[in-house]
Amino acid sequence: MAADRFAARRQKLLHGLKGTGADALLVTNFTNVTYLTGFSGDDSFLLVSKAATVLISDGRYTTQIGKECPGLDRCIRSQKESTIAATAGVICQARVQKLGVESESLTVAEHEKLAAALKSQTLIPVAGAVEELRLIKDAEELVEIRKAVRQAEKGFEVLRAELRGELSELEVANNLEYSMRQFGARGASFPPIIAVGARAALPHARPTSCRISEADFVLIDWGASATSGYKSDLTRVLVTGKISPKLEKLYRVVLNAQLAGIAAIRLGVRCCDVDAAARRVVDEAGFGKHFNHGLGHGVGLDIHEGLRFNAVSTEELKPGMIMTVEPGVYFEGWGGVRIEDDVLVTRTGCEVLTSTPKEFEQSIIQ
Amino acid sequence: MAADRFAARRQKLLHGLKGTGADALLVTNFTNVTYLTGFSGDDSFLLVSKAATVLISDGRYTTQIGKECPGLDRCIRSQKESTIAATAGVICQARVQKLGVESESLTVAEHEKLAAALKSQTLIPVAGAVEELRLIKDAEELVEIRKAVRQAEKGFEVLRAELRGELSELEVANNLEYSMRQFGARGASFPPIIAVGARAALPHARPTSCRISEADFVLIDWGASATSGYKSDLTRVLVTGKISPKLEKLYRVVLNAQLAGIAAIRLGVRCCDVDAAARRVVDEAGFGKHFNHGLGHGVGLDIHEGLRFNAVSTEELKPGMIMTVEPGVYFEGWGGVRIEDDVLVTRTGCEVLTSTPKEFEQSIIQ
Repeated sequence: MAADRFAARRQKLLHGLKGTGADALLVTNFTNVTYLTGFSGDDSFLLVSKAATVLISDGRYTTQIGKECPGLDRCIRSQKESTIAATAGVICQARVQKLGVESESLTVAEHEKLAAALKSQTLIPVAGAVEELRLIKDAEELVEIRKAVRQAEKGFEVLRAELRGELSELEVANNLEYSMRQFGARGASFPPIIAVGARAALPHARPTSCRISEADFVLIDWGASATSGYKSDLTRVLVTGKISPKLEKLYRVVLNAQLAGIAAIRLGVRCCDVDAAARRVVDEAGFGKHFNHGLGHGVGLDIHEGLRFNAVSTEELKPGMIMTVEPGVYFEGWGGVRIEDDVLVTRTGCEVLTSTPKEFEQSIIQ
Repeated sequence: MAADRFAARRQKLLHGLKGTGADALLVTNFTNVTYLTGFSGDDSFLLVSKAATVLISDGRYTTQIGKECPGLDRCIRSQKESTIAATAGVICQARVQKLGVESESLTVAEHEKLAAALKSQTLIPVAGAVEELRLIKDAEELVEIRKAVRQAEKGFEVLRAELRGELSELEVANNLEYSMRQFGARGASFPPIIAVGARAALPHARPTSCRISEADFVLIDWGASATSGYKSDLTRVLVTGKISPKLEKLYRVVLNAQLAGIAAIRLGVRCCDVDAAARRVVDEAGFGKHFNHGLGHGVGLDIHEGLRFNAVSTEELKPGMIMTVEPGVYFEGWGGVRIEDDVLVTRTGCEVLTSTPKEFEQSIIQ
């Protein structure tokens, strides 16, 4: 069953290659290799051609490949052979002539070495062929992302229940990742951002020894990675002290912007229009220049993948896409508010996959 | 002080570029950017030329760059501008003509876009220029790696003290990472391998729900990443049940091989000769073909960096290099033994940075 699913993806990939001039693709992005085979290791390439599909790996992974990819042809290189040399051998044996290479993954040096090892073949740079397939999540992928959402949300429930003033950002982050793993996550989908007060103005703040009690609110941006590698991504702000009018005002603006963004999501809508729908709310409240990043991004095996909600993307939404919606408003020295959910585009509109409460009243810790 | 250190590294880099034909280097490997600036974020490039050093980043990082890299010139691209477009602008402004690019990091697609954006400049692929500098750790780096070693070893002490039969590999891994963070680590330097019994034969085993009590020993391969990003990497086997003669025999062979490898480490020795010194012990015990990987690798900001101890590397050791020494012997279906320490090459020999006990008797949990 599972093997069939991966084979079907590879069939689609070959179909998508028509028009590129390539009759095979060397997949060098490890996440794309996982997507096409179910193999969860690193350092391995995959050749996909009409005649042959071969995973090129090394001895550390022999047993794992047998378990994860039953029936898949493999070339286990020896310790003395480089991956590129082994790959060149596989390509020659498969009689590939026009080899597509993943131009967004293959480095200039790898390209050079591969070209030198292959005498008669032509290398054709191909961009985004596997990523194009990954845009639309199938039923199994959706199951995995729902798992990652649940692991993240269960972890957050524990965080919320345990939160107290003397905990540092570092301790909260550590506890959160620990809890998500207890609920079955492989780990956090990215290092959690736990940003107290003014630190919430740093969109990529690293946790510090700053304590929760040092300000009136804390921004938490986190997610889980399921064991399959599929990821979730959320943000909430919790009010841990005095409820300032400024915080409440910004919170309501950001939440309204987020709801407006979500309301704009349906098939056929352009990404820039979803971004604009949310941005308009922030602009009208007078905080436009304090919303200094895009509205969201695709999420799946990578925490950032596929489309972007921003001012310039004219790509259109399709059913099966999963996007974050995460407007934010920031003031240096004061802090910021961001609210983020994961949203599935459906045939009739969209479904918000995350359900952690986000009303202002619900963000207040008594 | 710190800024001076990074400036000195960039000076060395420029010096090292002589002979490549390039008069500047575009640093696109994010770890190399960190090494040369102290900036700990992602998605940013660095131009290093005689006339100018410019960090090309985006609005998420403005405040962080100000704190981490005081005095460093920066170009914060707008939301509508791509990193490549912003980079091209910086290169033109710096009047670079022969631009070195990191060929082991820049992708084929990025190279294509950069070449298209730059009309009159020549792009020169340069391999390993920053990595060459990173081979030799300076005093500050050594301090950081010692921290990462201590965090890993303190975490392991907790693991050892808490170990009991009903814990699963997943729980042990989660507890270990939690403990290392409590001792100040940013996190694990890689997902810890906790492999019970037969699973120890998989060099890259992922933790499962298998319980410690399901076999007589467990292999633990772990490390910490200090907040600076510097890493440690260790492996120990703990005997948790019956002491089988086979386990004891293999353990002693692997330990002797490891000690022989460490004894061979001194400046001027070739990497392949260190590998051979350890492998000889395993070969003579009759287990040669069960030692199916290299003896070790450099460690620093990346968990695998720099040199490799293997059969083919003729590179010579120099003072300031830090290498793992980790022979292993594996039997599919039975399990395996690997013992790993981190070793600094010194002017007079070497120093083992790790001190977690490794005698067979010390590996037995009563």
